[in-house]
Amino acid sequence: MKKERLFTPGPTMVPESVLLEMAQPMKHHRTGWYRDMLKEVTELLQYLFQTKGMCLTFTGSGTTAMEAVIAGCCPAGHKALVVENGKFAERWVKECKTFGIEHTALPIEWGRGAKVDDIKKAMDADGAIDTVIVVHSETSTTALSDVAGIAKLTRDRGALLLVDGITAVGALPVKMDEWGVDAYVTGSQKAMMLPPGLGFAAVNDRAWERVDSGKTPTLYCDLKAYRKSLETWDAPYTPAVTLVRGALLLLQGIKERGLESIWAETKLLAAATRAAAVALGLKVYARDPVDSVTAMVVPDGVDEAALRKKMQVKHGFQVAGGQGDLKGRIIRFSHMGYVDAFDTLGAIAALELTLKELGHAVKIGAGVAAAQQVFAG
Amino acid sequence: MKKERLFTPGPTMVPESVLLEMAQPMKHHRTGWYRDMLKEVTELLQYLFQTKGMCLTFTGSGTTAMEAVIAGCCPAGHKALVVENGKFAERWVKECKTFGIEHTALPIEWGRGAKVDDIKKAMDADGAIDTVIVVHSETSTTALSDVAGIAKLTRDRGALLLVDGITAVGALPVKMDEWGVDAYVTGSQKAMMLPPGLGFAAVNDRAWERVDSGKTPTLYCDLKAYRKSLETWDAPYTPAVTLVRGALLLLQGIKERGLESIWAETKLLAAATRAAAVALGLKVYARDPVDSVTAMVVPDGVDEAALRKKMQVKHGFQVAGGQGDLKGRIIRFSHMGYVDAFDTLGAIAALELTLKELGHAVKIGAGVAAAQQVFAG
Repeated sequence: MKKERLFTPGPTMVPESVLLEMAQPMKHHRTGWYRDMLKEVTELLQYLFQTKGMCLTFTGSGTTAMEAVIAGCCPAGHKALVVENGKFAERWVKECKTFGIEHTALPIEWGRGAKVDDIKKAMDADGAIDTVIVVHSETSTTALSDVAGIAKLTRDRGALLLVDGITAVGALPVKMDEWGVDAYVTGSQKAMMLPPGLGFAAVNDRAWERVDSGKTPTLYCDLKAYRKSLETWDAPYTPAVTLVRGALLLLQGIKERGLESIWAETKLLAAATRAAAVALGLKVYARDPVDSVTAMVVPDGVDEAALRKKMQVKHGFQVAGGQGDLKGRIIRFSHMGYVDAFDTLGAIAALELTLKELGHAVKIGAGVAAAQQVFAG
Repeated sequence: MKKERLFTPGPTMVPESVLLEMAQPMKHHRTGWYRDMLKEVTELLQYLFQTKGMCLTFTGSGTTAMEAVIAGCCPAGHKALVVENGKFAERWVKECKTFGIEHTALPIEWGRGAKVDDIKKAMDADGAIDTVIVVHSETSTTALSDVAGIAKLTRDRGALLLVDGITAVGALPVKMDEWGVDAYVTGSQKAMMLPPGLGFAAVNDRAWERVDSGKTPTLYCDLKAYRKSLETWDAPYTPAVTLVRGALLLLQGIKERGLESIWAETKLLAAATRAAAVALGLKVYARDPVDSVTAMVVPDGVDEAALRKKMQVKHGFQVAGGQGDLKGRIIRFSHMGYVDAFDTLGAIAALELTLKELGHAVKIGAGVAAAQQVFAG
């Protein structure tokens, strides 16, 4: 009966109403019921991605949507530029290697987001690049990339822009059509507040043209198969019916509340959390911090694993640690989905208590007060 | 509040206790809790597949497990024989084509299962074949293949045997190690009584040797990545935590009840359903009928779509129609998972009523009585 709050940047907390919706008796997917549901989900996804492009639902982790987009949009004869600024950016490089896609990895400092100049320089240096891949919100480093600016550049240059929006879509302003992004992907377990198990891709006509020009090297993640099935509001392979059912309820809720309102609250939660960090003398890790996740540098003398464990076991707040080179150095707080100001104050209070319990000098209440000031406006 | 019973051969009905288990608050997967759970699930899968081989859990439809096995086990330089006797067998051929795997498709009559002689002849005719792919229970035609016999042959010839066990594992006798099958795959939404969204593959040492000899042409379905993650009871990509949670409860239940007992009940449900068909003057479609699904030929003068619709809308029993060439010609009843003799009697009674309502001459009660005789032994 101990209360637990999940502050990890995916999976995130799932609303109780959605958990119960997904616990309804199983229904079959080759039915009018499912087709009506998938149609509505697909239309609501267009709202979520802010696009008139086609939105596809994959049964799998967000990586299925990534694999579908990269395998489809980079047939032989094309060359990709992958900005490499964290663990998820690295996965795009792995995808390129797996499918033998010609590519250049552009490493930039962890904690920084991709900027127009980074892309411009790389494209100036290599005229063969006609596809750019950027992670909007690099979950591992909590860095924000300038997707709007980069989209303008890729449009001007006639290149495709594929964006990993896995901790961006539904949390940060994402305006696929207005900006001119050609494909965006996300997963269910982030700002969509669902359990993991669905990947989503939004694909515009320019990207489809590229897809149709080549052969797809994957069956399960073949964009064309999903497009064809969508003609009858179907899936090429048995879909995760319960998760799609949850997605419908969630997306209806997101539309009702309005994306602008969600983006504004996410921003506020991040601002409050960063203010708390400053008040507690903790460094915010990222140089270009994103609003969907905040990383704080664990202060010297404090053991990161012990900090997270105590926060979870004693106080019921689960935050994430660092990944790769950042393992043991940072802790991360999610601001996505089913989390509000009061949960966030609780997480900050739990952090303060835990730091004190671990012998770190901390002025109890300073972080919470700073966050409250932000919420008070 | 109308009662509904799902008799489709996947998704199948999910026990209420499992629905509620999966509706528990979301928990994170990079935790001891998840690792302990995945370890137990993995060990229970070994019981399910009757193997000491490694068992892998994929987030996706059963096709992810198929793709992982075929892409891993057929690197360049090898040649596959795919017995093609239904819609799911055809999917294996598509996988071969997608990955450029050298293969021969061996079409056999729909409704028949693969037999030792089919494979023997094909292997005699083509010495390059070193991999055989068979669908144990071809869900689309309800035909049973002789996996035990074929495994003996492939062992004798030094070939690998990859088996699609999607409506076999957990329903029919499957003895991977005793028979000598090298890789078996299944999905969550069949005899495992879970919602769709997980694929499972069991892979023995002979198959791993083959996997390790080549390059894998997929990232999401890369067997090696799953094996590596399993060293720390982890998943390479965010797993469908709620479904794995359900899988644990289900597999514990299957072990407690015992596979032999489940196989015997499935067999009895099939025998009773076939007896009912005969008593009602309906033809059982498959020449080699499997015990996990029964297909009956829709009698002349009865519209298949109307039959299924009325059974569902009026009586709450959802059965499946035919696929491909069998569309409009058969209806299929599942005997897998959370379904018992009394549900099955109900389904037969609903079939009788519906046939009568559609103007087909039927002796009400004849099918139910015949089924009851089977249950009475």
